[in-house]
Amino acid sequence: MDPKIEELKSRVHEVHDLRSAAAVLSWDQETYMPPGGASARADQMTTLRRLAHQKLVSEEMGQLLEELKPQTAQMPDDSFEASLVRVVWDMFEREVKVPTELVAEMSRAASEGHAVWVEARRENDFERFRPALEKLVALTIRYAECFKPYDSVYEPLLDQSEPGMKTSELRKIFEALKVEIVPLRKAIASRAETVDDRVLHRHYSEDQQWAFGLEVARAFGYDLRRGRQDRSAHPFTIGFSVDDVRITTRLDPDFLPMALFGTLHETGHALYMQGHDPVLGRTPLANGASSGLHESQSRMWENLVG
Amino acid sequence: MDPKIEELKSRVHEVHDLRSAAAVLSWDQETYMPPGGASARADQMTTLRRLAHQKLVSEEMGQLLEELKPQTAQMPDDSFEASLVRVVWDMFEREVKVPTELVAEMSRAASEGHAVWVEARRENDFERFRPALEKLVALTIRYAECFKPYDSVYEPLLDQSEPGMKTSELRKIFEALKVEIVPLRKAIASRAETVDDRVLHRHYSEDQQWAFGLEVARAFGYDLRRGRQDRSAHPFTIGFSVDDVRITTRLDPDFLPMALFGTLHETGHALYMQGHDPVLGRTPLANGASSGLHESQSRMWENLVG
Repeated sequence: MDPKIEELKSRVHEVHDLRSAAAVLSWDQETYMPPGGASARADQMTTLRRLAHQKLVSEEMGQLLEELKPQTAQMPDDSFEASLVRVVWDMFEREVKVPTELVAEMSRAASEGHAVWVEARRENDFERFRPALEKLVALTIRYAECFKPYDSVYEPLLDQSEPGMKTSELRKIFEALKVEIVPLRKAIASRAETVDDRVLHRHYSEDQQWAFGLEVARAFGYDLRRGRQDRSAHPFTIGFSVDDVRITTRLDPDFLPMALFGTLHETGHALYMQGHDPVLGRTPLANGASSGLHESQSRMWENLVG
Repeated sequence: MDPKIEELKSRVHEVHDLRSAAAVLSWDQETYMPPGGASARADQMTTLRRLAHQKLVSEEMGQLLEELKPQTAQMPDDSFEASLVRVVWDMFEREVKVPTELVAEMSRAASEGHAVWVEARRENDFERFRPALEKLVALTIRYAECFKPYDSVYEPLLDQSEPGMKTSELRKIFEALKVEIVPLRKAIASRAETVDDRVLHRHYSEDQQWAFGLEVARAFGYDLRRGRQDRSAHPFTIGFSVDDVRITTRLDPDFLPMALFGTLHETGHALYMQGHDPVLGRTPLANGASSGLHESQSRMWENLVG
């Protein structure tokens, strides 16, 4: 392989390892970390994210990408080399507009906010979380403002979840959906009889629910030698590599759908991530193409197969 | 505070955060990581340790320490400033002799070796672990050789566990112990009757053992809002900050001493670490003074109090 591509790979590996390490710290924060650990964890994650950002937007990285762009322009669009240069270039171009200190501030606010959120959620006390949320929204707006000019402040945020999608396009999609959904919702709400949903509220022990959820996940194809399930306040899927993709769930002994459909949903995300080509590992190519595609996988397994 | 000390602190924080993050990854590797995660984990830990080493032995760090040494020389030896400069200088002076690539190779060999060790241990198959161990020994010798000249290759390694201790001194300690211990051991071995140790082999469920061990740990003063216990192949204590110090244990339903004394031993280490002054946090000052002092704490709680 071209030595320039090798150099790009090694720089990308470094950034990717730092981000994956931050992901492990985030997983731990949401699953096992004792409450006392919150403050140091915010420091640790902020340092990792600051370094990852510095390394991504470094002058050397920019120069290397500039050199590689014409070189890979003739290669097939889906070759490893062309894809790596294209995707890393997009990341570089986006993140170079953002000051590293803002990345660090956002990381710190997210870590600190998470600790507050967990306690506020447990006590159903929104006011307690409000200041942290306000701070996060303000920082996110500052982040979006790095990408001016735009039609809507949401545009640059949307572009990250769904590359190329525009708010105007999204509005059209929702307008079309509203035409059908709003009357349907009204029709349901206006019906006199209530639906008997007692079947959903039968009692099953947490252990039985856990075992059953994992049995279905396994039957879907989730590889537990390359993944695992733990508990968290809100379910999520997180990958540290193609071969370590973890899910979480939460349990209510009197409401089976919570754990079960949570597990199936996250399994959908995890199957997408466990299915990435290992050749793409340690690079941003081993990643879902977009949030929409990710959600299409989780919803398909949860709602159609499940 | 002096701006130079502030700059030193911020550089030390960065190195410390990278090392703490590597510690979280190591904890995860020994407790919850699925087997598939081993290879990427070796990459991630190696990147963190390589960066921590680069940042510690950087020219800027060296220059800053040179400038601060005379400045803090007049301060009381146990002031924060003088201690920080002294301890970081010692780390710098030691690690600057070691090529970063050797640090990276050692980290990779340790991570990869751990995965092999876990499986070899489960199957009681030393030959399987031998190549990994030979590699680790060879790398450790290369590491020690960075500190030539020395009387014994063990000297620089000993100095890291027990700063200032010499192999010649250690030999004298063991010689004196041998005089008493060797005849004692022989006398016991030559006695005709065997000791009745059935009391140690009573059956207790793993849950009961777990709960009892933690009850004693709590009674010793282990703060579980700033710590937790998990299972691992071999017990250990690890700290990510003064407020997040974790222990592990292992269980045998037919041999209570394994879990119980394991927990009490690790609790001794953890109490030492939870007891560090928070002011020293995020620096190498929040660390045990030596392995000997650490072991004195774990042994005191396990063997004397326990």
